[in-house]
Formats: sequence, structure tokens, C-alpha cells
Amino acid sequence: MLSKNKIKFINSLKLRKYREKNRLFLAEGEKIVSDLLSSNLNAEYLIIEEGFNFKGLNKKVEIIRTDSSSIKMISGLKNPSKVMGIFETIQNKFKVSDIINKISLFCDSIQDPGNLGTIIRTADWFGIEHIICTNETVDVYNPKVVQATMGAIAGVKVHYLEAADFFKQISGDIQVYGTFLEGENIYKSKLSESAIIVIGNEGKGISGKVKKYIDKKIYIPCRADSKNFSESLNASVATGIVCSEFVRRKI
Amino acid sequence: MLSKNKIKFINSLKLRKYREKNRLFLAEGEKIVSDLLSSNLNAEYLIIEEGFNFKGLNKKVEIIRTDSSSIKMISGLKNPSKVMGIFETIQNKFKVSDIINKISLFCDSIQDPGNLGTIIRTADWFGIEHIICTNETVDVYNPKVVQATMGAIAGVKVHYLEAADFFKQISGDIQVYGTFLEGENIYKSKLSESAIIVIGNEGKGISGKVKKYIDKKIYIPCRADSKNFSESLNASVATGIVCSEFVRRKI
Repeated sequence: MLSKNKIKFINSLKLRKYREKNRLFLAEGEKIVSDLLSSNLNAEYLIIEEGFNFKGLNKKVEIIRTDSSSIKMISGLKNPSKVMGIFETIQNKFKVSDIINKISLFCDSIQDPGNLGTIIRTADWFGIEHIICTNETVDVYNPKVVQATMGAIAGVKVHYLEAADFFKQISGDIQVYGTFLEGENIYKSKLSESAIIVIGNEGKGISGKVKKYIDKKIYIPCRADSKNFSESLNASVATGIVCSEFVRRKI
Repeated sequence: MLSKNKIKFINSLKLRKYREKNRLFLAEGEKIVSDLLSSNLNAEYLIIEEGFNFKGLNKKVEIIRTDSSSIKMISGLKNPSKVMGIFETIQNKFKVSDIINKISLFCDSIQDPGNLGTIIRTADWFGIEHIICTNETVDVYNPKVVQATMGAIAGVKVHYLEAADFFKQISGDIQVYGTFLEGENIYKSKLSESAIIVIGNEGKGISGKVKKYIDKKIYIPCRADSKNFSESLNASVATGIVCSEFVRRKI
């Protein structure tokens, strides 16, 4: 059974400061827990509903069996899952040499956990290994981010850095791209093999403090035959399209 | 002020059956309400918080001023907006001739309102005018779908049809595409100008009853150098990438 203290502790992991203090995070759902168990992440323990046969168990790890009412108390979902895992966070060290000759992403204050999670999932699909986030970006270990990654969180290294520090380090070596209404048609632009793709905030786009480091403004062409069209793409959809175009040129 | 009856009525619009019965839906948020007011949709009335200066008001429409506690009672958001609108739904009539020589989307049981809304927003961006949905797909006037469209709901015609009825009608005239793991590399595939892009359910993919109508299986290439990579893309991200590739060929 889960003790009251353990329930309190697990619930504290819903807040960034306790995740950072304890270097632990909560993942919920059979598929995600099973994917994380297969990855290089260390599981602290799993919580599984009594009587439930969890098929994703593929390594030795402490298991706490408990009833559905205790699970409800720690779940962040409307329909709580029967399997949860407490995993160690990864402390990624950023080195410029790791992102040379590669495509990497830079999240400029992404706020929506679903968007960051989906961006990580997309990066993993395309083999993008590094995502740099400003400190204003939502925490990668937020339970809703973890949920939206669908297990991809283990395959991508996410770094939190100050924008100025990061861009000064890479200056000259890697071309920095961002989408702007006045940008060049991405389908017809020359795209470099060493690239940072900047993803702007959902409402405000790319911030002033990041904009000055953009080497090339690009644009995903839209229909322009009507004034009544949506003026923007969802941040994670735009990321998917830009990543796809970079990857297409390489293969 | 909002009467108790009106609050009850507006809340009833959160359910599909009452939206269909009354042919009305609720939109929440300054930007969305303002976009819908600029569109061809008819507004029944707006609800605006007392003292709030709504700048998106660009046509004559009944306005009900009310206090923030009444707004809280009808809002579907954690942070209720100060502006809401009740709009008439559009009864779209589907004709095959409308989708000839165009790219259209077919949603095969999309469940997540955020995904459907984002797909509509993406379609609008690329000038895709028609989206056909199976009856199992989430309702386009679900408040969370409306929210995620960011106003694009007015620019795209969404039709609910039985899969078999739809595909029999278009048979032979329009190429039907779907993404499958065993599909052809989309970047290297011949893509037709008259196309239906099928989007599968988030968990189950393209259903058996739709699969048999697929003319060409395509695939978004992923990195294949590791077993620990996410096995899928988010439905709306995949849609964005496939739409982008179709549009790129045209321009």
C-alpha cells in the first residue's frame, strides 16, 4: 500500500521545485512507463494497481501495489492509469560540439505542456537529439509534458539555458533559423546541415532577445487568397513541418 | 445579467445533442470571438464581463453584460475569458464536385478535441477547404475543438459522413492517401493534385473499414538507428507534415 507520506511526496513532484530538489519525476500510463523502463532512465519505483497484470515490466524494479483510490490521489489524469512510475531525471550537460553538423531545436518560452511534449516526440521521430529551452519554457518533467512525449522523453536531451549564453557559444558555427511572416519560402530556401530551429512562444512568437540571433528567417507558405484565414499554425505543427523540410533535404 | 435559465442553456451547449438540437455553439476568448465575428458565421449573442472593453466588436450583435462569477459558471477554461459568443452552427452540404482537383482531409475517428481543432487550423493555413469526418470523430463544435482551431473553424467546411458512403461516392475520381509504417517514402512518392489524406485515430491508426479505400500508402521517414524511438507522431503533427508535402509540390 501507499503510505500517506508517500502520496504526499508523489504529489509534491507535480511542482517543478520538488522535482528539481529530489531529481525525480512521475510518469503515468502503461505505454509510457514501459517505454521509460526500456530506456536509459533509472526507475526509483513503480506503483501498480492491485491485481493488475502490467506487461511492460522488463527489468528489476521496486513495485508498490495499491488500490485504485490511492492511485486516484496521485494521478493527474481524468481517468487514472493503473501504472505509474517514479523515475530519476537526467542532468544533461550541454556541449557545443554535440550539436555541430546536426539539426537541433531551440524553444523560446513554450508555455503549453502538450506542445513541448509533442515537440519532443516529433524531435525523437526525426532523430533530433538536442532541444535547448529558455528557462521560461515549461519544465520537461511536468507530468503533462511527460504524457505528451509518449515515451520519447528518454530519446531526446533537453537543456535549459539562458538564450544569450547559448547563442554566444554557438555563434558562427551553426545557422539559426526562425519562422517569420516576412521570411523566405522554406520550400525554396537553402537549408544548412548544421542548424538550430527556433520555436517561438504560442502567443507572442519569437522574443526580441532571441530574434537578434536569427541568421535566416523562413516561412511556411499559406494560402493568401482570403483575409479570413488563421494567422498561425500551432507551435508543434509548425515545428513538425520545418523539421520535416530539413530532414527531407538530407535524405 | 445572465439569468439562471440562460446559464443552464449555455451549459447545455457543452453537450453535442443540445448543440445539434439548437444549432448553436459556444466560443470562448477574445481572439476567437473576434475572428468568428469577422467570418460568415452568425452570432446569436455575446457575453462580455462588465466593464471590459472588447475591441473585437465589428458588427451589430446583441450583448449581454454580466459579472465574472456568472462567466465562471459557463466557462470551460481554467482561466475564464471575459468574452464569449453563442454562434449558429453551419450545416455544410457535401458534394463530390467540391473536392475534385483539391486536397481534402478525412478524419477516421479522431478522439482528442485538441487534435481535431489543430487539424482544422492547419487545413485553414494551407487553404484546404473540406474535412470529412466519420461519425465517431469528436464534434467540431465541442468547445475544446473550437478553442484549438483559434478561429479557423469558419474557414473550413467540416462534414460528418459514413466512411463507406463517402468513399463510394468519390471512387475513381480522387486518390486516397494514408500513412502506414510499410508505406512509400512521402518525399519520393508521386502525389496527385486531387487527393484525400486520411488521418487515423490517435491510438489505433486507420481503421479496417477505411483502410480498404486507401489507394496509396505513404510514410514520413523517421530515424531508424535505435529501438528506443517514439513509434509515432502526434496525429495533428503528422497531418501538418503530410499537408505541407502535398502543398510544396503544387507551388
